[in-house]
Amino acid sequence: MSEFRRNSLTGQWVIFAENRDSRPQEIAIRQSALENFECPFCEGREERTPGETLAVRDPTSRRDGPGWRVRVVPNLFPAVGGGEHAKPQAAEGNTTAAGGLHEIIIESPRHLTSVTQLSAEQFAQVLDVYRQRLAALRQDGRYKSVALFKNSGTMGGATLSHVHGQLIAIESSASIFADRTPAFREQFQRYGNCLICEEIREEASRDGRLVAESEKFLVYCPHASRFAYEMWIVPRKHQSSFDQIDPAQLPELADLFRGMLVKLEAIVKLPAYNYIVQTGGFDTLADNHYHWHIEILPRITNLAGLELGSGCFINSILPEKAAAALRNA
Amino acid sequence: MSEFRRNSLTGQWVIFAENRDSRPQEIAIRQSALENFECPFCEGREERTPGETLAVRDPTSRRDGPGWRVRVVPNLFPAVGGGEHAKPQAAEGNTTAAGGLHEIIIESPRHLTSVTQLSAEQFAQVLDVYRQRLAALRQDGRYKSVALFKNSGTMGGATLSHVHGQLIAIESSASIFADRTPAFREQFQRYGNCLICEEIREEASRDGRLVAESEKFLVYCPHASRFAYEMWIVPRKHQSSFDQIDPAQLPELADLFRGMLVKLEAIVKLPAYNYIVQTGGFDTLADNHYHWHIEILPRITNLAGLELGSGCFINSILPEKAAAALRNA
Repeated sequence: MSEFRRNSLTGQWVIFAENRDSRPQEIAIRQSALENFECPFCEGREERTPGETLAVRDPTSRRDGPGWRVRVVPNLFPAVGGGEHAKPQAAEGNTTAAGGLHEIIIESPRHLTSVTQLSAEQFAQVLDVYRQRLAALRQDGRYKSVALFKNSGTMGGATLSHVHGQLIAIESSASIFADRTPAFREQFQRYGNCLICEEIREEASRDGRLVAESEKFLVYCPHASRFAYEMWIVPRKHQSSFDQIDPAQLPELADLFRGMLVKLEAIVKLPAYNYIVQTGGFDTLADNHYHWHIEILPRITNLAGLELGSGCFINSILPEKAAAALRNA
Repeated sequence: MSEFRRNSLTGQWVIFAENRDSRPQEIAIRQSALENFECPFCEGREERTPGETLAVRDPTSRRDGPGWRVRVVPNLFPAVGGGEHAKPQAAEGNTTAAGGLHEIIIESPRHLTSVTQLSAEQFAQVLDVYRQRLAALRQDGRYKSVALFKNSGTMGGATLSHVHGQLIAIESSASIFADRTPAFREQFQRYGNCLICEEIREEASRDGRLVAESEKFLVYCPHASRFAYEMWIVPRKHQSSFDQIDPAQLPELADLFRGMLVKLEAIVKLPAYNYIVQTGGFDTLADNHYHWHIEILPRITNLAGLELGSGCFINSILPEKAAAALRNA
């Protein structure tokens, strides 16, 4: 079992997961002996991962065999939940066992390394798998909070290049995943509205930071973008959690989302990035005041001493200029 | 003029400094044409930097010429303060001009790339320059808060390899550099003691996370270390700001501090790291409840989607094991 620890000076939470050092380091070994590296996520190597939780399969294929399009498996090197771990010492108030689950969403049976290599249809299917897993975990009842994200490229923290997303659900209080919902709850209680609904009204009314829009979604570079070319994809209509999305809207979302990554690749060659599906917790009804969205965070420069020491980011491109470049890409 | 922007959803601050894209990218160009790169920090190239703010010099040398041991200059590509920048629009409530100062502390006249290549005496002189600059900026009266740090290695966010520290002082409210002093103030007001004084008592009383100690200082891996081999150097006696240190203690501190980086280099080959001198703000008397310390943050893996999306870090090495490895290094 992993464990969570909290820094009492800063409130900062950390997950300790010792097993993760054993992960296959494909990207790190690339220069030397990559020809000998066998990707555990490729079709035909299903026995290299734990048995699947969910898969989009040909009707004739069998569980944990080939013949799938998207496949969800428990992470063999989980950050939370699995494995044995030193028991938290009772004396340490700011320590708690890290109960939870860590899954990998393998987004193609082929060894593709960018989401933009997926067809729009395949990417819509990936998003539908995200939706289904969130819905199932909410239904499960054991989990309070979830992180759903992708690491792409070495600078983005990826260790395997095969396209995949990650989902970490935790049983402990939502505040471990520094919860954004309280600000939304407070806004709703004070002013009766939603922070992102307000932001959309502002961003949609002028094109300064707006990058693209479709019937149901907007994309803009946020006012206080932490990263160059940071983009947020936001549903126009208030909706707290990604698993509440009408599946009929997924093709539209997939098309817009994939288009933004194509634009990013037009500006930055082989970009590293993270994207995060920010969604309400499973905890309380009050999370209905949250407004789900997707954050695309390009990782062009490394975070440095200022960011880690003060929490304040430096960005050398104003979002107004980033948005103009992305619109024209 | 750069600008600060605040994300109203998260409270996150960002500095926008467009000029910084023009910085010389020595480390990025290393593979191709580094032989042609002339380091602007080397002795004899003083005209490549703005005129010095402070220097430790041979008595016979002249200002902004050769003959120095440590040299402080304004950053040619400042994150705050210098240069022209679009005026913040009045309509944007969460925007403010980024008044302040950004300095580079060049820590050797020679092209050394690690602090461990400095003599203990030279490193003590570097720390004394840190102390002097903090004292002068406090005296100046224009600044509210300061960040003092080093980026070392590409993963640490460095763009030039010549050993140097950085100092960013801002005129705006201390909360932009996510101020840790409120937690200390609250602790003092409630319980009459200091959070770090308490922590020292606990860490010193058992050797689980203790790495080294000297007469006046302790080094330990903190309970909730965000990074593998993270180390904090803490003065035993309560002292709020680094510029209050008795200069007679600097050789002892330099020896201990440099020794910790030597240990880190024994465990990790060519480690990238940041170190941060966490010191009280210049703002109020209440900052006396803070306890200055130095955080050494090794950068072995990149921060990824979980950290950026949730604020929660993953660390694969428990501080108890990291401390044991460092003690034996």
